[in-house]
Amino acid sequence: MRATTIHGTRDIRLSEVPDPRIEKPTDAIVKVVAGCICGSDLWPYRGENPVVAGNTIGHECIGVVEEVGADVRDIKVGDFVVVPFDHCDNTCVHCAAGMQSACVNLGFTVSGQAEYARVTQADGSLVAVPGTPDASLIPSLLALADVMPTGWHAAVAAGVRPGGTAVVVGDGAVGLCGVLAAKQLGAERIIAMSRHEPRQQIAKAFGATDIVAVRGKEATAAVLELTGGAGADAVLECVGTDDSMKTAFHAARPGSMVGFVGVPHGVVLPVGTMFGRNVGLAGGMAPVRKYLPELLGLVLDGTIDPGRVFDMTLPLEGVAEGYQAMDERRAIKVMLQP
Amino acid sequence: MRATTIHGTRDIRLSEVPDPRIEKPTDAIVKVVAGCICGSDLWPYRGENPVVAGNTIGHECIGVVEEVGADVRDIKVGDFVVVPFDHCDNTCVHCAAGMQSACVNLGFTVSGQAEYARVTQADGSLVAVPGTPDASLIPSLLALADVMPTGWHAAVAAGVRPGGTAVVVGDGAVGLCGVLAAKQLGAERIIAMSRHEPRQQIAKAFGATDIVAVRGKEATAAVLELTGGAGADAVLECVGTDDSMKTAFHAARPGSMVGFVGVPHGVVLPVGTMFGRNVGLAGGMAPVRKYLPELLGLVLDGTIDPGRVFDMTLPLEGVAEGYQAMDERRAIKVMLQP
Repeated sequence: MRATTIHGTRDIRLSEVPDPRIEKPTDAIVKVVAGCICGSDLWPYRGENPVVAGNTIGHECIGVVEEVGADVRDIKVGDFVVVPFDHCDNTCVHCAAGMQSACVNLGFTVSGQAEYARVTQADGSLVAVPGTPDASLIPSLLALADVMPTGWHAAVAAGVRPGGTAVVVGDGAVGLCGVLAAKQLGAERIIAMSRHEPRQQIAKAFGATDIVAVRGKEATAAVLELTGGAGADAVLECVGTDDSMKTAFHAARPGSMVGFVGVPHGVVLPVGTMFGRNVGLAGGMAPVRKYLPELLGLVLDGTIDPGRVFDMTLPLEGVAEGYQAMDERRAIKVMLQP
Repeated sequence: MRATTIHGTRDIRLSEVPDPRIEKPTDAIVKVVAGCICGSDLWPYRGENPVVAGNTIGHECIGVVEEVGADVRDIKVGDFVVVPFDHCDNTCVHCAAGMQSACVNLGFTVSGQAEYARVTQADGSLVAVPGTPDASLIPSLLALADVMPTGWHAAVAAGVRPGGTAVVVGDGAVGLCGVLAAKQLGAERIIAMSRHEPRQQIAKAFGATDIVAVRGKEATAAVLELTGGAGADAVLECVGTDDSMKTAFHAARPGSMVGFVGVPHGVVLPVGTMFGRNVGLAGGMAPVRKYLPELLGLVLDGTIDPGRVFDMTLPLEGVAEGYQAMDERRAIKVMLQP
């Protein structure tokens, strides 16, 4: 099949690789209808994470089930499915406790930017969409593979509550979905930190009531001014750098939580500040499968439209241009169609 | 007055110092009925925190109001009061949000091991005990100045819930109070980590169902075995060292919280582990005043008896011996009577 492969820093190619196949009886193979590029794919692209040259890349996709293993009972060939980037059996002790991203049989999509993807623990992982979804729904369904549940996880971990104030640090696709999640969870005032006009527009469309376009101490001061000196009731950290984490902790009201979902890179947590100000931290890799049924319902009934984060769509052959556009911040998030 | 002063490493003296006086109209002066030595007093005692030679030490006491400032309305001369170690106005934006330990008018008891103590923000800080409490209640009332609300804060921050499993790291007075708090908040299984038989006995009396007497990886393994491989639903970190924090994170089930109340000393938070396992951290300096009314009620009606953590009582003149006994772990917690 044709699949996206990474060969080094800023070296993304569309290559011919062996088709994925059923390796375990709990696997399924999905024919990809749409995949996309994640902000976290930019870490290896930029040389910040090590890569194995020639490996496939891409963990977000939706598609149609092409083949299932002998033990797959609920998912059928022909089902249109959302593929959580993190696969789970949905029955183990951690899944039962609602933390599917710690499943004892955890797996990942590894060829989401390709023609086919192998899904482990198919019955636990996949959620079928009723019938064949309208083409207009494709972007929002694709957002359910990662960014929307991840933004949602940030909001849940931060303890967003009806009537409260939320700050969202980060204006990437996850941050924007975090705004949407905070709105949906009832936050009354949502302060989005963004310096980019097109992203500010989406943040506002998703429910942001205020935009803070400065950084660092100025950003903290702006949040304090907007919250009567108190700080925010909940802060969503959707970047993963040390600077963004510091901003998050300073924007949070004493007694509140920072919900973090950006894979930490070079973060040194300020334990003294956390202790002194009673600001906690929760979050991590999102348990996508946990949130999927609820979020799928919200997409299908038109309540949320997270697909708005896709502002560029390319055929699979354009994947290298897609990475470049995201790297240069010309695109928020790129959808790829095989 | 006679007051405890610190002059250097392991140099504690009872000295004659000027009486504290009303400095602001919101102050009160309390004649100390009982004070005590805190585990955190051992940090400067052991030379791990810097000291100013000759300064008074001691932040926990109860007593009778001797004098009030012109603006004190609710607290009266003659009231028997519990003195939270952290003083607050109980009206500012942070107090209103339930985080009195971040009060904009935050103050501290600085001569709790003495004849008199000055309390700032007397109306906000002090809680009067009805009438004159029976002598048998003195230890438990004294525990309300710090260790019991601090253990309670750990349990609340860790998210202890009815029917769940809680692990308590640390068998000092705060850890033991954490066990009592977890029991009161409904934890069904409470695993106390303790290697000291007298402390194990109190932990059991306070509600611990299991004792883990090993440390480090062995302790983690023991908790996993006791929890069917899942880890605990809530972990109370009541020490503040890097080792105890690591143990806490490893004992926690994915998706749960570590509640920390031990002042961090040399702690480097494992952000990668926290992210990967979705184990959060919350807590800090306890908002004692927030919890006092509820905890005072539980002490007065005999539901809880946190005063059991005091296993040595000395006259004020014996304070140096009290420090030595706690330093050598011959005593869990020492009460001082002026």
